[in-house]
Formats: sequence, structure tokens, C-alpha cells
Amino acid sequence: MTNGKISEQAVEMLNRAKAWWTTRLIDIRPGVIRIKGEPIENLIGNVGYAHMVWLMLRDEPPTPAQTRLLEAALVAAVDHGPQAPSIAISRMAVTCGAPLNGAMASAINVLDDIHGGAGQQCLALFQAIDSHAQTRPLDAAVQLALDGFVAEYGKVIPGYGHRFHPVDPRAVRLLALVDAAQASGEVEGRFARIGRQVEKALGERTGKQIPMNIDGATAVVYGELGFAPELARGLFILSRSVGILAHAWEQKNQGGRIKGPMPPDLGYTYLQDN
Amino acid sequence: MTNGKISEQAVEMLNRAKAWWTTRLIDIRPGVIRIKGEPIENLIGNVGYAHMVWLMLRDEPPTPAQTRLLEAALVAAVDHGPQAPSIAISRMAVTCGAPLNGAMASAINVLDDIHGGAGQQCLALFQAIDSHAQTRPLDAAVQLALDGFVAEYGKVIPGYGHRFHPVDPRAVRLLALVDAAQASGEVEGRFARIGRQVEKALGERTGKQIPMNIDGATAVVYGELGFAPELARGLFILSRSVGILAHAWEQKNQGGRIKGPMPPDLGYTYLQDN
Amino acid sequence: MTNGKISEQAVEMLNRAKAWWTTRLIDIRPGVIRIKGEPIENLIGNVGYAHMVWLMLRDEPPTPAQTRLLEAALVAAVDHGPQAPSIAISRMAVTCGAPLNGAMASAINVLDDIHGGAGQQCLALFQAIDSHAQTRPLDAAVQLALDGFVAEYGKVIPGYGHRFHPVDPRAVRLLALVDAAQASGEVEGRFARIGRQVEKALGERTGKQIPMNIDGATAVVYGELGFAPELARGLFILSRSVGILAHAWEQKNQGGRIKGPMPPDLGYTYLQDN
Amino acid sequence: MTNGKISEQAVEMLNRAKAWWTTRLIDIRPGVIRIKGEPIENLIGNVGYAHMVWLMLRDEPPTPAQTRLLEAALVAAVDHGPQAPSIAISRMAVTCGAPLNGAMASAINVLDDIHGGAGQQCLALFQAIDSHAQTRPLDAAVQLALDGFVAEYGKVIPGYGHRFHPVDPRAVRLLALVDAAQASGEVEGRFARIGRQVEKALGERTGKQIPMNIDGATAVVYGELGFAPELARGLFILSRSVGILAHAWEQKNQGGRIKGPMPPDLGYTYLQDN
Repeated sequence: MTNGKISEQAVEMLNRAKAWWTTRLIDIRPGVIRIKGEPIENLIGNVGYAHMVWLMLRDEPPTPAQTRLLEAALVAAVDHGPQAPSIAISRMAVTCGAPLNGAMASAINVLDDIHGGAGQQCLALFQAIDSHAQTRPLDAAVQLALDGFVAEYGKVIPGYGHRFHPVDPRAVRLLALVDAAQASGEVEGRFARIGRQVEKALGERTGKQIPMNIDGATAVVYGELGFAPELARGLFILSRSVGILAHAWEQKNQGGRIKGPMPPDLGYTYLQDN
Repeated sequence: MTNGKISEQAVEMLNRAKAWWTTRLIDIRPGVIRIKGEPIENLIGNVGYAHMVWLMLRDEPPTPAQTRLLEAALVAAVDHGPQAPSIAISRMAVTCGAPLNGAMASAINVLDDIHGGAGQQCLALFQAIDSHAQTRPLDAAVQLALDGFVAEYGKVIPGYGHRFHPVDPRAVRLLALVDAAQASGEVEGRFARIGRQVEKALGERTGKQIPMNIDGATAVVYGELGFAPELARGLFILSRSVGILAHAWEQKNQGGRIKGPMPPDLGYTYLQDN
Repeated sequence: MTNGKISEQAVEMLNRAKAWWTTRLIDIRPGVIRIKGEPIENLIGNVGYAHMVWLMLRDEPPTPAQTRLLEAALVAAVDHGPQAPSIAISRMAVTCGAPLNGAMASAINVLDDIHGGAGQQCLALFQAIDSHAQTRPLDAAVQLALDGFVAEYGKVIPGYGHRFHPVDPRAVRLLALVDAAQASGEVEGRFARIGRQVEKALGERTGKQIPMNIDGATAVVYGELGFAPELARGLFILSRSVGILAHAWEQKNQGGRIKGPMPPDLGYTYLQDN
Repeated sequence: MTNGKISEQAVEMLNRAKAWWTTRLIDIRPGVIRIKGEPIENLIGNVGYAHMVWLMLRDEPPTPAQTRLLEAALVAAVDHGPQAPSIAISRMAVTCGAPLNGAMASAINVLDDIHGGAGQQCLALFQAIDSHAQTRPLDAAVQLALDGFVAEYGKVIPGYGHRFHPVDPRAVRLLALVDAAQASGEVEGRFARIGRQVEKALGERTGKQIPMNIDGATAVVYGELGFAPELARGLFILSRSVGILAHAWEQKNQGGRIKGPMPPDLGYTYLQDN
């Protein structure tokens, strides 16, 4: 071996270094960017944001019907006003001097198990029901899965009921879109059936109507589309990010410095021990 | 005043509390969610994500042509691979145990002035040129604005040149879409002209080709569409969030625990004082 | 009721608003700031940072011996170099343009279950052993708890072994400090015994020495001091924040723009499907 | 050169990789951790948190007097209650399901220019005055620097005045500690003089007392200790992190799910265009 040749040891070390980060998502060479094998210039202007989201998260490209349903779900959850902690945090961050990226980061960060995880938990429940239903009737599968869920997590079933909306208009609309897609053979409708059966079972268990909310309806959509439960959270974040950005921007234009949650004269309660 | 009436003082205090957070974006009542006056159920399934982004950030709804251009820009910047700090951070965060929201937050947070601000800075430069060009020829306006920019920020002009791509395929494609929109009268093409004139001027100043990159091309698009410079950063974040999510998800499926930036045996350099 | 009086309804509403955030930590009035009842000016200059940390997290003030042990643990974990994801992220964030607060936030955020949770998990294990040991000999309690832990979480026991250090010098020193505090009657030494018994049991189970690491040793300290497991994570964050800040600052002074994890010519591996 | 030898080219590439991250802060080898050359086991139990902070951020170790002043400043700013946006965000984050690291990250992130930058800006002003005072009397230096500051940033001088406290008890105490340190020859007192001269000048300019607040007083301390202005922000973060952690923990123990900034029945104001 001559002086100029790279030795086996070094080659091995460099290869391990190059293999430290590996991806199937993107191939970049000078002048070339390919997403899942497709040159980026073929995608720009030809496919939409929702198509791109699917392409990056799934093995196969979406059909137009799948893209439409995904897009509907992404549109549905963009905002729920400045009383939602994520939105409030985005606005407060701006008044602290944070740039848009900082405001968005602080806000997105709190879309955790409770504020951003209901869709994920609901989809996991639906998938458990779907699995149970391979070997038993749907209503038995629902009861079995609900019992398991309640035993593990308690009585609040994610995706059902809303402390503010008697009926969630977003859920009604999303379910109608799933029904239409099923009617035209574009989705199976299995998760819509599951979702409605859960609603029925909750009504029987509690003696009152607890209608599906936005998290339940997006779980139905994402279930029909074959997404993993965890991605229900990821997709919700892409959706809510629009509202988070818009409220940050609105607050920036309104001005205000170091805005706490409430007017200073309202204040908080100091609990003195005694 | 009778016992049952709310006193003026309390009403005033409650009103100030209610006015602490104000928004024109969204109106929420039991069973009703209106975005910029439009019931959410009329938007879901009828408009796409890019339309929704526009609606939330602007005073007027977009035309279909505007939506298409905005969507093209949102698609263009979704990913640039695991060597980009934002993407690397998202993947590292997952190996530290962070959920998707946490990984996305840590990553989006670093889309700051240098890693995420080039589009904003470039659009601000373009708008300055556009303003100068009201009263002088375009090439003079470009020289004036470039001199001002260099005096304030130094020689690196954001939106031009790429350390990896001799020509950025995303920029070429985006400019072609702007040209087509101009040809059909959908945009004026003023910012495309400005962008190209800057490229020409940089070539003359430096003696070498420094072609427009993705940040320059999206600045052209956002300029044509009338967005404020700061929103160029916000829109870039919505775009790159797709890649950030997809890489977090891929890393989660790959596994790995507490992955530092490089293989441990490569390590870092300790600089000993002596 | 006269005109000037605040009605019951409004008073009730205002009271609920004031009770929305409640705290026992701090009482603030014009010109007065009291932490757990103590005027802040009596604390400043009279107690140290570690004392203050304890005061804010616990019901009773610390003894000097408790403060010393807590401070030792806070000092021990400040840094483990730029290969730790948290530190690397802090440095990368600075090269993206993030201010110190942004760099620290992105970094602290990844101190999650895997990168920042070992102390918490280890302390929870120790407390389970301590509880089992009320009714059986310590070695049986350790076996019982280890079996439970392995069944639930797998074979890796947090707080033991280090991929880099055969013996962790921080753990040795912290244990010596606990032993000294026990010898002088300042702590009971119950958690030191538990920690060492776990080390012994792991050696017998695996046939090799798996010595306690920094997370195990801080879990011993925090156990002796009576902290809840979750606070082991919180205290670790206060400690590691020092290193995160210092590396951000060093990187800022070094310069560098958009530094990815590795030199660009080393790059990553694109896994092509075929 | 033989087959087993590492070629020059590979050695060079590997060296560049190892040099990608460089630090003077910490040297780690198997079984060895040295901070600024000092084995970590010599620091644990022998120096306090504040000493460690100094050691990591500065070239020379602190004197005991320097450590005491730094510690006083770190103690002074730990908390200002749940109406501060950073604290409110920490508490809200917990009710969204965020772990302690996530809550702390979202909160620390907003300690940006406005909410966390006053100390930094004030210290930069003080240093400008100190520089001007090399060649002119102190009062002239103050006037010159104030004029420059107002021209660039507007009339609000960071570090002076408080919207809640007529006199900030933290500032009074910190200044007394600086005075005592000056009396015993441990600090020069140059920045205390500057700070007081600014207070005097502001009184003359505005016709009312605008006393130094916590940010002004910590800027005096950090100025006396020779810290760079940017580190005034970093040190404030280490301090406020204690309060952020403690409020997160208190909220966690209080419970509560998805707590928005205000009680839902108080709500926000929708501004309808008309």
C-alpha cells in the first residue's frame, strides 16, 4: 500500500462516522436534492403541503383522496384561541422579546401528553379496538378496549367530550368527509365505525351523550389513513403551528411588554400556611 | 343599584381582564368556531393548508394563484438533511427520550437569525430595494441597498450562494413558477426582477456567479405575495417543521440512546492552555 | 346594596380569577418580596444558591449539612463535554443565531427520560427498595425491586455503569461525602447502603462489576436528603445548566455559523432502498 | 507505508473531525473528568455552585469575596411569582403534560431581550459609561451614554424603575453588599458609583425618583466582578431557573389539566372588524 492510500483502519473509522446519521428521507449531492428518491424540483409546484407531509412520513406516496383527508385534518386543528395554553404561551413569549421561532418553540413544546396527546391516545385506543375486532364483534371489542383503557388510565376517554363545545363542529365535518370518502370507496370506514361505536358505548356507560371531539375525529381520519398513533401528535403539531404562528404575529403587531397571564391588578393568590 | 347588579367597579375590572388577550383571528362560542369570520366547518375539506396559513396571517383571503405560490414555497424548504443543525437536533432529542413535540420544539427554536433568518433578511433587503426603486432606476436602487446592507451587516448577502450547491435546484424551480405566474398576470414580477438584479450586481461586485438560493427564491415569492419580512421566517418554520418531524420519527424507529453529534471514538478536541 | 359596592357575583368571579394561580412559594406586595415567608433581603448575602434551591422545593429549610450535600451533587454534574447531546445542542444553537436563553432552552429540553431521567429512575428504584426493606432484609428487598424493575423496564439499571468511565470519579467522591455525613450523624446512610447493595446484586447477576455512576450517586444523595424522584431530574437540570451555559458562551466566542454535528465533508449516509 | 498505517489523507480528515468541536472547559478520559484542569473530585464537596459557575465562565478562579457577591446575585433573582410570564409558562406547561425539563425549557426560552435582557442591557450601558469615564468626569460620561442609549433604544432605561415595587428590596440589599465589599477592598466600587450616578441623572431628567431595580443591581454586581454583559442574561437564567423549577413542581402537586392563562369563564376578547 502506498503512502497516499487510505488505510483500512481509517476507512473503517470514517465509515462509522458517516454511518452515525443515516436516513432514507433525503439524498443531497451538489446541485441535487431528492426527497424519497424524487428530485425536489419535481415536487415544488406539483404537490401540496399535505402531500409532502405524507411523503416524508410514509413509505408510499398518497393517493389524491388520502391527501384530501389528511389536508382536512391539518386544516381543522389550526387554532382554538388565546385561552389554549399553547397559544397563550406563544403570545406571552413575543411580549418577552422572543422571535417567532422562539415563541413557536416554547408553544409547541407544551403540546405534550395532555394538551397535544389526546389524538394519539385516541388513535391507540381505536387501533386496539380494531385489533380486538379481528376475533369478536365490534361492540364487544369496544367494551374490552374501553375496560382496559379505563383500568390503566382512568375514566376520561381522549377524543370524546369538550369542556366548551356541546358538539364540536370540526368533528362533525371531518366525519362527514370520511363518510363521503367511504361512499366513494376511497377509505374503508373501519375507524369511523369504531369511533361511533365508542361514542355509543360511552353514552350507555355514562347515561349522557359525550360526542366525539376534534381529537377523536382526527384519530378517525388518521386511523383510516394508516398513520401510527404517535404521528397523530406530530400531525396535530403541524396543524396547530399555524395558529401559534398567527397569534405570535398578531401579538407582535399589538405590542405589549412582559405580558403575564392576567392583568397585574387581578393577580394571583398567595396561600399562607397557618 | 340593587343587590343583584354587578357594580361598575367590578364590571370595569372584569372587562379589563377580558381585554387582556384580544384577537381578530378566532371567535369561539359553544358549538361555534369562526376563523376570520368563517365557520371552521366551511373551511375543513374546502380549503388547503396553505390557504389556511394565508387566512390566519393576512387581512384578505388568498386567490388560488397566491395559494399555489405560497404552497410551492412551503413545499420547497421542508428538509435539507441531518447535517442541518435543526434536523440533527430533532434526531438527537429523540435519542434523549424527548417526545415528538419536544424534539420539534428544540429544533424549531434554533431556526434563529442565522439558521432560519436568511429569508427574512433577504426579503427586507428586497423591500428596501423596491422602496428605493420608486425614485430611481432598479440597478441604482440595488447598488444603494447593497451598499447599505454591507455597511451594516457585512459582505455575506442572505439569499445568495450555497456552501454545498453550485446551483440550488429549489431556487431555479421557484423562480420559474414566479415567472409563469407573472406571464399569466397573477403576480407583478417586481420581486423576481429585484432578485435577479441583485444576483447580477453580486456577480459584478465579486467577479463570480453567486446564484440565488432557496432563501432568496422564497424571499422573491413572499415579496410577490406581500408578506412582511418577519413572516418569511415564520413560513420557513412551517415548512422545515415537516422535515424536523419526519427525521424525529425516522430516528425514533431507528432507535439509539443519547446519540451525541459524532461517534464517541471520534470525539472532540480538548484545548489545553499552556 | 349601594352603587359603590361590588356585587356578590362579580366578587365571586374576581375571586375565582385571583385563585386561578395560587402559590405557597412567594408573596409579593409593593416593596415586599417574601420567599416562604422570609423577606428576600434577609436571604440575599446570607444563604447560598443551594440553600435557596432547597427552600423553594421543600417545606422546611435545610440544615447546613443538608445544604453541603445538595451543593456537592449540584457541583458534580455540571458538565460532561461537547459529546453529550445537551451540550452539543447548546453549541449548535449558538451557531444558528440563538441567544443564550434560546440555546439553553433547546438544550435543557432534551434532558428527558433517557438523557436526564436516570437519576430520577434510580431514586425511584432506591425508594422502592427502601419501602420493601421495611418488612424484609435489605438484600431480599433489592432482589425484589430489581426483578420488578427489569420486568417493567428491561435489563439496563439506571445509575450503574458508564459507557466511557470504568469508574466514575464523581460517584466515588459523592459517596465518600455521604459516608462522612453519616459518620457525623448528619444523614442516616440508608440510601448509601441501598445503592451499594444494588451494585453488589448487579455484580452477582451479571458476573461483572457495574459500578455506580453519577446518576446513582446523586440518587443516593437525593435519597438521603428526602427529595422526590422527579426532583432528581430537576436538580440535575440546575446542575447541567451551568455546563450548557458555559459551552454556549465558549461557542459564541469561538464563532462559527450553522455548525452541523459533523464536518460537512464527513456527512451522513443516505440509505437507498433497492 | 504499510497496509496497517493510517494514510495522511485519512489522518487529516479524522483530525478535522475531532477538531469540529473544541473546548477549554473540560477534559474527559476514561475514569478522569477535569474542569479547567482541575479533577472534578477535588471540586465536589470543596467548592459551591457559585464557584463552579464562575470557574466555567471565566479564565481565572474566583476569590471567596467574588464568589460571595456572585452567589448573592444568583439568590436575589430566583423568583418573582406566577404573574411573570416565565413562571406562568412553566406552570401552564406542567398542566399540558410536560415533564420538568420541558416546562423549564419553554419557560427559560422566553427570558429573551425584554423579559430576561434588562440586566445585560444595563451592564452594557454601565460599561459604556465606564469607558467614557476614562477621559471625562463621571457625570458627563453618564449623560453621554444616556443620550446615546435613548437615541438608539428609546426612553426606558433598563435596570431602573419597577412597575410594581416603589423600591426594589433586592436592589437595596445587593448594593449594600457591594458597598461592604468595597469597604473591605474586595471590589473597586466603580460600577456601584456608575449605577448611582445613572439613578441621579434619571431623577434629574424626569423630575421623579426612578430607583435601581434588581436588573440594575445585578448589573452593578456583575460589572464589579468583570462579567461580559451577555453573561448577565446567562446568570439571570441560572437564578430564575430555581423559581421556574419550583413553580413547575408546585403546579404538578396541585394538579390541573390544560390550564390556560385565565379561568375559562373570563375568557378573551374577540375583536370583530366592522
